[in-house]
Amino acid sequence: MQSYIKNPMGIEVKSFEIIGEEMGPHSFDERELSIIKRTIHTTADFEYKDIVYIREGAIDAALNILKKGTKIYTDTNMALSGINKRALKILGCDVVCYVAREDVAKIAKERGITRSMAAVEIAVEEGVEFFVFGNAPTALFKLKELMLEGKANPGFVVGAPIGFVGAAESKEEIEKMDLPMITVRGRKGGSSVAAAIVNALMYMLVERS
Amino acid sequence: MQSYIKNPMGIEVKSFEIIGEEMGPHSFDERELSIIKRTIHTTADFEYKDIVYIREGAIDAALNILKKGTKIYTDTNMALSGINKRALKILGCDVVCYVAREDVAKIAKERGITRSMAAVEIAVEEGVEFFVFGNAPTALFKLKELMLEGKANPGFVVGAPIGFVGAAESKEEIEKMDLPMITVRGRKGGSSVAAAIVNALMYMLVERS
Repeated sequence: MQSYIKNPMGIEVKSFEIIGEEMGPHSFDERELSIIKRTIHTTADFEYKDIVYIREGAIDAALNILKKGTKIYTDTNMALSGINKRALKILGCDVVCYVAREDVAKIAKERGITRSMAAVEIAVEEGVEFFVFGNAPTALFKLKELMLEGKANPGFVVGAPIGFVGAAESKEEIEKMDLPMITVRGRKGGSSVAAAIVNALMYMLVERS
Repeated sequence: MQSYIKNPMGIEVKSFEIIGEEMGPHSFDERELSIIKRTIHTTADFEYKDIVYIREGAIDAALNILKKGTKIYTDTNMALSGINKRALKILGCDVVCYVAREDVAKIAKERGITRSMAAVEIAVEEGVEFFVFGNAPTALFKLKELMLEGKANPGFVVGAPIGFVGAAESKEEIEKMDLPMITVRGRKGGSSVAAAIVNALMYMLVERS
């Protein structure tokens, strides 16, 4: 068995070099590129180069919210787990996921909605500004509904639900809104991709280590 | 905005139907197919049809360990988060991830190894039989080293480290061992894929709900 790199940061730096070499020509600026590369890094799938949509002004909007210390909503505990806790702490940010809460399960059952939908309602009531969706199309549809009803006014959204039923449509729908966002178009995305996008944003403010 | 399916199990059933229709001809048996479909479900990436390797006898070996109630080692908190807690509970199983433990960080720093390598050493000392790798090639290399030294004798391994540096090689190396395993060949894999494989195995024993 050959020797292997045992330094995690060394592995990450080398990985990003390989991604840069293999991804070919592009027109991303430096900050956009750091987001794209991190989604490829977390999936080993170069298709992310073509399906990540970064709305103009979205990065600045996200960073401004992160800088002041914010509560980040996530729709899954996997996304929550994947978000770098050290960077969160330095920024004075917090990350929450309500889907496993007993009151959320109760509300969902009583009203015949998903737990993710109930969770997004609670986050909106709490005034959360920074939303991260890696799994639940229903939650992203619900956020749009709450916006159309004038009840929600998010400052930034990562829209990356994954899957074969509703995921692509949920992202098409949220893109119709005038709102700073980063989405993953089509079926792909997921909790690890959503977390990677948040981490890429935080690493623009906090040195990676 | 069109109406949308709000029943999570309905979404999953429909998703699996779509995956079955689109994945085309194959020679998987029913149990293998359930694993393959779940990896595609969690990535929206049909390449998993071609890169998931299920060793003969591996499914039975995994189920026999799960049935008796076991401690499952995972290399990331994301994989841990993605493993279905209800199914674990019914099976009397538990899932652990040691990478964030303070003693693990201390050992890693003192010895110049990764936290994942230190974590796998602890799991081996504890007699863990069921290993799940979704991220760390170094941990999978370390498990092979411990096997070659006669210190580790795992009963089943999910080998799905993802990435550009060492991931593919780590899986090639573990495949050389005579050991029940499911791996994801090449660069792809990841915590969500590793968790999906474990869930697919548990759902062979515990009804999905």
